[in-house]
Amino acid sequence: MQPEDSAELRALYQGFKDNHLNPLWTQLGDLMPVHPRPKAVAHVWKWSTLYPLAKQSGDLVPVGRGGERRAIGLANPGLGGEAYVSPTLWCAIQYLGPRETAPEHRHAQNAFRFVVEGEGVWTVVNGDPVRMSRGDFLLTPGWCFHGHHNDTDNPMAWIDGLDIPFSFQNDVGFFEFGADRVTDYATPRYSRGERLWCHPGLRPLSQLQDTVASPIGAYRWEFTDAALTQQLLLEDEGQPATVEQGHAAVRYINPTTGGDVMPTIRAEFHRLREGTETPTRREVGSTVFQVFEGRGAVTMNGETTTLDTGDIFVIPSWVPWSLQAETQFDLFRFSDAPIMERLNFHRTLIESAE
Amino acid sequence: MQPEDSAELRALYQGFKDNHLNPLWTQLGDLMPVHPRPKAVAHVWKWSTLYPLAKQSGDLVPVGRGGERRAIGLANPGLGGEAYVSPTLWCAIQYLGPRETAPEHRHAQNAFRFVVEGEGVWTVVNGDPVRMSRGDFLLTPGWCFHGHHNDTDNPMAWIDGLDIPFSFQNDVGFFEFGADRVTDYATPRYSRGERLWCHPGLRPLSQLQDTVASPIGAYRWEFTDAALTQQLLLEDEGQPATVEQGHAAVRYINPTTGGDVMPTIRAEFHRLREGTETPTRREVGSTVFQVFEGRGAVTMNGETTTLDTGDIFVIPSWVPWSLQAETQFDLFRFSDAPIMERLNFHRTLIESAE
Amino acid sequence: MQPEDSAELRALYQGFKDNHLNPLWTQLGDLMPVHPRPKAVAHVWKWSTLYPLAKQSGDLVPVGRGGERRAIGLANPGLGGEAYVSPTLWCAIQYLGPRETAPEHRHAQNAFRFVVEGEGVWTVVNGDPVRMSRGDFLLTPGWCFHGHHNDTDNPMAWIDGLDIPFSFQNDVGFFEFGADRVTDYATPRYSRGERLWCHPGLRPLSQLQDTVASPIGAYRWEFTDAALTQQLLLEDEGQPATVEQGHAAVRYINPTTGGDVMPTIRAEFHRLREGTETPTRREVGSTVFQVFEGRGAVTMNGETTTLDTGDIFVIPSWVPWSLQAETQFDLFRFSDAPIMERLNFHRTLIESAE
Amino acid sequence: MQPEDSAELRALYQGFKDNHLNPLWTQLGDLMPVHPRPKAVAHVWKWSTLYPLAKQSGDLVPVGRGGERRAIGLANPGLGGEAYVSPTLWCAIQYLGPRETAPEHRHAQNAFRFVVEGEGVWTVVNGDPVRMSRGDFLLTPGWCFHGHHNDTDNPMAWIDGLDIPFSFQNDVGFFEFGADRVTDYATPRYSRGERLWCHPGLRPLSQLQDTVASPIGAYRWEFTDAALTQQLLLEDEGQPATVEQGHAAVRYINPTTGGDVMPTIRAEFHRLREGTETPTRREVGSTVFQVFEGRGAVTMNGETTTLDTGDIFVIPSWVPWSLQAETQFDLFRFSDAPIMERLNFHRTLIESAE
Repeated sequence: MQPEDSAELRALYQGFKDNHLNPLWTQLGDLMPVHPRPKAVAHVWKWSTLYPLAKQSGDLVPVGRGGERRAIGLANPGLGGEAYVSPTLWCAIQYLGPRETAPEHRHAQNAFRFVVEGEGVWTVVNGDPVRMSRGDFLLTPGWCFHGHHNDTDNPMAWIDGLDIPFSFQNDVGFFEFGADRVTDYATPRYSRGERLWCHPGLRPLSQLQDTVASPIGAYRWEFTDAALTQQLLLEDEGQPATVEQGHAAVRYINPTTGGDVMPTIRAEFHRLREGTETPTRREVGSTVFQVFEGRGAVTMNGETTTLDTGDIFVIPSWVPWSLQAETQFDLFRFSDAPIMERLNFHRTLIESAE
Repeated sequence: MQPEDSAELRALYQGFKDNHLNPLWTQLGDLMPVHPRPKAVAHVWKWSTLYPLAKQSGDLVPVGRGGERRAIGLANPGLGGEAYVSPTLWCAIQYLGPRETAPEHRHAQNAFRFVVEGEGVWTVVNGDPVRMSRGDFLLTPGWCFHGHHNDTDNPMAWIDGLDIPFSFQNDVGFFEFGADRVTDYATPRYSRGERLWCHPGLRPLSQLQDTVASPIGAYRWEFTDAALTQQLLLEDEGQPATVEQGHAAVRYINPTTGGDVMPTIRAEFHRLREGTETPTRREVGSTVFQVFEGRGAVTMNGETTTLDTGDIFVIPSWVPWSLQAETQFDLFRFSDAPIMERLNFHRTLIESAE
Repeated sequence: MQPEDSAELRALYQGFKDNHLNPLWTQLGDLMPVHPRPKAVAHVWKWSTLYPLAKQSGDLVPVGRGGERRAIGLANPGLGGEAYVSPTLWCAIQYLGPRETAPEHRHAQNAFRFVVEGEGVWTVVNGDPVRMSRGDFLLTPGWCFHGHHNDTDNPMAWIDGLDIPFSFQNDVGFFEFGADRVTDYATPRYSRGERLWCHPGLRPLSQLQDTVASPIGAYRWEFTDAALTQQLLLEDEGQPATVEQGHAAVRYINPTTGGDVMPTIRAEFHRLREGTETPTRREVGSTVFQVFEGRGAVTMNGETTTLDTGDIFVIPSWVPWSLQAETQFDLFRFSDAPIMERLNFHRTLIESAE
Repeated sequence: MQPEDSAELRALYQGFKDNHLNPLWTQLGDLMPVHPRPKAVAHVWKWSTLYPLAKQSGDLVPVGRGGERRAIGLANPGLGGEAYVSPTLWCAIQYLGPRETAPEHRHAQNAFRFVVEGEGVWTVVNGDPVRMSRGDFLLTPGWCFHGHHNDTDNPMAWIDGLDIPFSFQNDVGFFEFGADRVTDYATPRYSRGERLWCHPGLRPLSQLQDTVASPIGAYRWEFTDAALTQQLLLEDEGQPATVEQGHAAVRYINPTTGGDVMPTIRAEFHRLREGTETPTRREVGSTVFQVFEGRGAVTMNGETTTLDTGDIFVIPSWVPWSLQAETQFDLFRFSDAPIMERLNFHRTLIESAE
């Protein structure tokens, strides 16, 4: 229902342009769709492609001050080549060669790392050296200084998750360089944050102030694995413990509040029993999964892709998705759900059980 | 500090492109600047330009189902012609001719209206008719049905504020058509929401559940004006009441929580005494002001523009700004501050007293 | 089921006594009853008795430093003569003769006043003079300095409510003397707190820090009356506004949070239409009502008492109660509900509609 | 400053009595002291006295329906023989003979157990059997069914902590009998609650609703000990980890909120290095300590008592206290601090370092 074309109307529209105006009635359906119609598309990146390219970068691209990180961002095919896995999230594979150091810096953007394979790197967060090992989930909340160093003769790769697109789009980012070398090359088994905080149900009396982000620097695989194992055992005993039949899951939390680890990023770990299929869901906000172990498939928008260890896929807002487990199937997940919930935009629709 | 060009490097970069990847080291400084470097620019729209264009639209553009609203969005010159006053906010002038009706619909986006002049329109929000008069601030929180109708023989214009750009960018929007005519053409002086809620310090016992958005549909000018008047009188008596010397201000709040009226939008009203100049501030997030009454000027990024009734200006993230009041100077303000605060990205820097 | 008596048992019990011990099994049913069995009893004090005794006190008892207040506490007949209206609450009639001053002091205990009749006294709270008039509800949160003075040639009486029994029992009280005369004998119509805060839906920008107790010193009768009137009008129009049919009510709130005015005391005002009877309720915690206007009755524990203006009654924990309105019936109410809710002991049972 | 005695005054006072009134001016100083003046006194109960009396009770007093528990309450010498360790708290030694069962019941009162020595009993909380072993802290939040059974041929004793006096005084208690035998005689090493919740920094995705009390049924000694050990090691490394030099401490928390385990009771564990003396503190509210291991002393109100394993002492409100450690000194602590904090009555004064 648009006004009829006329010389006057064209003059009016030119007047809009000249005065930095733009009418709603010519664009309403695009700007305010019936449901989210993301430009970002559902997409899968194969680890078998990612890792070799990262390794090549290790040969060709130095790491150091300026470039800061040898990180290769996943660029959603719908987002014009920008290194955005979704409109809110950044996901990259980072690669650190033997004995290399990625220098310290800090930024308002929130960051984490997840280790799908390998070991030998320590990330130093506000001076606290944190070991990075297979299955660990590691935090670098906004405005914490951090650098990484590889203490071994082997390279190591992992994935980084950040809120860079959100921060860029909304003009909230600050950045500051730190030391060119990490401030502490010690390689302790457990970071100071873990030693203070990783005792279940216990809070240090010296740490009663709640913090915006979790004070835990590393969520170790041994604990994640044990929690998921117990959920499935409890399910076997007929106890309510899993999210749905055959589907165990934990959320990583800030122990000072019981809530999400960082203000913009949620992180979880999911385990499906062999043969499990999840119902088809739609959610507001974007989600990224990485397969940690096992084989299975994801169906997004009705299209199914098989998945192996290390494969990463993104589910944009309101895209229907479900998972199928061929073997026991372990997946790391992160999303922008805290943004959606804190701003009251969250919605979930469970379409059907498959 | 970029790697040296080579055939291998070019092959690597091509591999990135082919596989929907994009390295961080070629773009870090742009993606993660030292402080926010918004594409949006500081800009002033003159009411003397806006209103005539809106009036012309009234002659040429029908209002009704499909286009929904005769609203003309302010398009920030830095944002490529999109009708975004900032990356997060939408601001439009809306115009409704004599006896016209803008049909009902609802959307996840949060909306408000502010009336700089005129009267005679009622906005019907979830079936509750709300009078729109000069100086009133009116709410349409996300997912409330709403339509407008002009009960008089004169046109009326006002400004709309919404979180459309934020919602569009982050894929959170839902939209639903409602009735073609408004559901209630009554023209009561006070809406039911006001009658229930606008008694200072009193909460209806039937309404003890806190709400995400304010249940008050209209914040009347008479109350805003009285609050500002009292602050300046208290300042005269030597009492702490104003934000800073000569600068009275109120924030519109949700009475169930004492916090912002909607999850994404903050709204305030500011009054400067004649001759007052505010210190220069920088804030994370974007802000829009409309002059309600009086004459003065705004300085943004060191450039000063004089202002009259109805003029609207936008201050993008981290742009330094200050106000100067030639006469007593009344301004309505809205911003995306709740987003910044809830996600912990807020920062303010008071640079200097001018 | 008690152990059989024996010399050994008696020796054991003596051993308990000698060592400051006391076995659970001899007293369980009393200590941990099936439901609350308060020592406090339901009781009504008639204003026609209270006021003359207060007046006599005005003749015989000076007011000043040491005794501090000419306040006569209602002593629940079940509580051994202590001036406790319930185990948690204090309620007194206070009387101030012409031109008298009650000196300033402060205490950790939270206090309020409610004026059933009269005028002419100002209470000065942290230096802010607050007029006391008929129907007003006035706050003195914990640790605020306060004194009262009568600016007229007539005496005035009102009721005080405090958490003295709770504070005494739990050893939380602190007390400090202030000035012997009030610090400001001005008699403004509105206190500074009201001038800053009593604008519906508006928060001074200079007051963004939430406060433990309400910053409003006086909740004026004109607003309370208007709110109740509107609720009944809305009910007439078929709108959801009242608590139950014919029963309008408001809660006095802290505008910084939307919650109760003080951490230990809830205050409300109730209006029943002529002929209304409320359902019979039981609630954990104790409640006090004072009739403000109209005639009616209260039924507590099945016993009905007729009520006139000024009459005060207490409903101990879990005592069944209902109200009947002979005329339009206005009642002020206060209770310890915030204690019960904050400590998760609240429970309500609506037994039946009468 | 009391009125002069006269016939009229005596008549007035008689009028008060006859009408259930009690004037403030005759009792102000007692009711509203300058600082808390608790009737409860500082007191130490020796384990060497408690345990033999409990053992004798095991011989003479049956456990079963009606008496419910073989629990001997510590009766503060200042509280007239009532089994109240303080005005808010109950502390008892409970004793269960070989193969005995304490039947199931539930009550609004919040309860916990702490095990200073022994093992072999399981407490069954809402059907979940929870092992009780040395050093464990075990929860029975309000309104959870619970019973205990001894699976061994040896007796076992432990301490119970509840909010019985507070609940009794404020008339908030409800009580319901359950099964005469516990509902599950299984003796698993870890309860279902622990298996779901005791993974540091991880929350089951099936348990996203926050709970009023902690879902953890048992806080195991192995974790408490490890947390304290790490704090002292971190202190050795010059890191901020302890409350004060030589004083490690943890608070038991509800993992859904990071706050106290139950709405009325705080629980902590403290470890002092050999030779450490704490500063003298005064706090609003009452606290109970039990020595878990080591030798030392407590000074309360200037009086010092030496302490051994199992000894229990109570510190009433505002009583100055400090601890001295002769050896490494481990103490369990519980208090009513959540009451004081939620009602805004908390205050702490650190008087001096000794």
